[in-house]
Amino acid sequence: MAQYSKVAPTPLLKDELDIVIPTIRNLDFLEMWRPFFQQYHLIIVQDGDPSKVIKVPEGFDYELYNRNDINRILGPKASCISFKDSACRCFGYMVSKKKYIFTIDDDCFVAKDPSGKDINALEQHIKNLLSPSTPFFFNTLYDPYREGADFVRGYPFSLREGVPTAVSHGLWLNIPDYDAPTQLVKPRERNTRFVDAVLTIPKGTLFPMCGMNLAFDRELIGPAMYFGLMGDGQPIGRYDDMWAGWCMKVICDHLGLGVKTGLPYIWHSKASNPFVNLKKEYKGIYWQEELIPFFQSATLPKDCTTVQGCYLELSKQVKAKLGKVDEYFVKLADAMVTWVEAWDELNPVEGKAVEANKVVAK
Amino acid sequence: MAQYSKVAPTPLLKDELDIVIPTIRNLDFLEMWRPFFQQYHLIIVQDGDPSKVIKVPEGFDYELYNRNDINRILGPKASCISFKDSACRCFGYMVSKKKYIFTIDDDCFVAKDPSGKDINALEQHIKNLLSPSTPFFFNTLYDPYREGADFVRGYPFSLREGVPTAVSHGLWLNIPDYDAPTQLVKPRERNTRFVDAVLTIPKGTLFPMCGMNLAFDRELIGPAMYFGLMGDGQPIGRYDDMWAGWCMKVICDHLGLGVKTGLPYIWHSKASNPFVNLKKEYKGIYWQEELIPFFQSATLPKDCTTVQGCYLELSKQVKAKLGKVDEYFVKLADAMVTWVEAWDELNPVEGKAVEANKVVAK
Repeated sequence: MAQYSKVAPTPLLKDELDIVIPTIRNLDFLEMWRPFFQQYHLIIVQDGDPSKVIKVPEGFDYELYNRNDINRILGPKASCISFKDSACRCFGYMVSKKKYIFTIDDDCFVAKDPSGKDINALEQHIKNLLSPSTPFFFNTLYDPYREGADFVRGYPFSLREGVPTAVSHGLWLNIPDYDAPTQLVKPRERNTRFVDAVLTIPKGTLFPMCGMNLAFDRELIGPAMYFGLMGDGQPIGRYDDMWAGWCMKVICDHLGLGVKTGLPYIWHSKASNPFVNLKKEYKGIYWQEELIPFFQSATLPKDCTTVQGCYLELSKQVKAKLGKVDEYFVKLADAMVTWVEAWDELNPVEGKAVEANKVVAK
Repeated sequence: MAQYSKVAPTPLLKDELDIVIPTIRNLDFLEMWRPFFQQYHLIIVQDGDPSKVIKVPEGFDYELYNRNDINRILGPKASCISFKDSACRCFGYMVSKKKYIFTIDDDCFVAKDPSGKDINALEQHIKNLLSPSTPFFFNTLYDPYREGADFVRGYPFSLREGVPTAVSHGLWLNIPDYDAPTQLVKPRERNTRFVDAVLTIPKGTLFPMCGMNLAFDRELIGPAMYFGLMGDGQPIGRYDDMWAGWCMKVICDHLGLGVKTGLPYIWHSKASNPFVNLKKEYKGIYWQEELIPFFQSATLPKDCTTVQGCYLELSKQVKAKLGKVDEYFVKLADAMVTWVEAWDELNPVEGKAVEANKVVAK
């Protein structure tokens, strides 16, 4: 270990953060992340064939769940966890006992900043989560809490304390996160622009949340980070993170929580197959034209004061309004309810702890 | 002129753009901008003592207005143009006959990008204005129309054409645009961070628009770019651009027009005196706590389909609602009406041209 002592940064929130990784292969990509991840606990969610053995490089502290584990732990409620889709990662959010989650894809590597230095993505996410957000008014010099920046002239003083940050959305150098049509049209486009900014997504504004490089405060927003029904047996894929992002944003706006995007960058190494992606996405591409207006106009009643309460209310609205778009959304709305029930079983509030633990035959 | 032929860039929109500069001193700062500005027409609005002679470096094509000119051209309506405050610059917007305006302060110089190259701020503003904005949904890779970027996965296809861009708000390296309290607390803070991004301010989100480095499409939004009553005889200063920005943003949101912020940077050379600024700002600092909720909740009726119509409606709401905050806003609301009347006199719609030109005894 001594060999890392020089480069390993102080591991912020070491005992309060889990790293969730969905995968179908050996996790060799962790070698490159060793200086940054090794002191944290990993939750690996194995997708696909549970009989396959996933190799994890030595020295990492981890727990691994395959489909059999998910079925055993959740019982009939396992139906809400997707199979053969990286949406399965949200199972990891549910079984974590930590306050913070960082999730990353296994084709994402350490990026370099313009000075050539390795970017400690996790450290930047933690900084983002630990400093407030400013969703009510836009600051033109971006993150006002960052060293060397502040609120500019004309920024109301009453809004300068900000609000707690629930989500930190990081970006990608090299392969951008494009949909299949854009991949097909621009197969060679690479993201080479390093934008040195973190900003709060304003209240009332939706964005496409990508699950590749994402961190959040589980206590603040965890039960809303459900990645939906995707992949095996479902009519769509590749909308898992988008779905979570839209639901999460509506709820954060309602509860007065902040969502940031920008730094940190990771290096996204390989584009997925655009033809396969098109097959997964095509229903999503046209459904999304109805989903966005739905989420843009969704409002939650004042008496929804918990994430779970908001999420259940949203599931009702999904069923009532999006159920008309396609039968799939009725099933998805039911799965949203199942997800919250499963979350509450695995994450009992104090007093109910003993009873709930019985259900989880871990 | 031959000496500049090598460095002068192609002057985009040469005959369709005026550069408006408010000033109280000789315009030596133009020397540094010569390669970028010399082929454009300048409108100089001289503030303060009209008997003072402002020297403009040779070779620039300009018209200059002092207070006597403003009084002569606008007659009694000149009361809407501020005196002893850079808010007077909006007179230049009014007398221009061009489609686009770029306005810059005389303490702003050419900044360098991270590679050490001089930044052609005007060219970047023009690019911002000529490409669409995306106010209805946030794109995480920022400006999707920029070379090397696009809309990311999950961005609705129906929104990818964007909307026309009305305003391009540029930023400042070196001296940041801080209010007096922040200047006092952080006298040595300098902005050294070059953020390589242009982004659309989402619909429904307000921001602090700074007039130091600003461009806009006069035909799309000109009559809303009124910089209010500031300076001599008024209870506040340094809120001219903020006022314009809030009014403009509400109207752009209503009319489906876009507002961008980010690149280009200029080099802001010197901080104004924080003690003087505090005197100018202090009423604004507490009034703004009521102004922001007012503008955040302001809605315009559907039958307001022109900028003038929207602006007059907004002036009524200012009088009715902000008039209760202070008598000043009653006066300001009246000045907003005068401004629009003066604008329409100087910028007659076709057919009314002859009659209106009589009024302007130029």
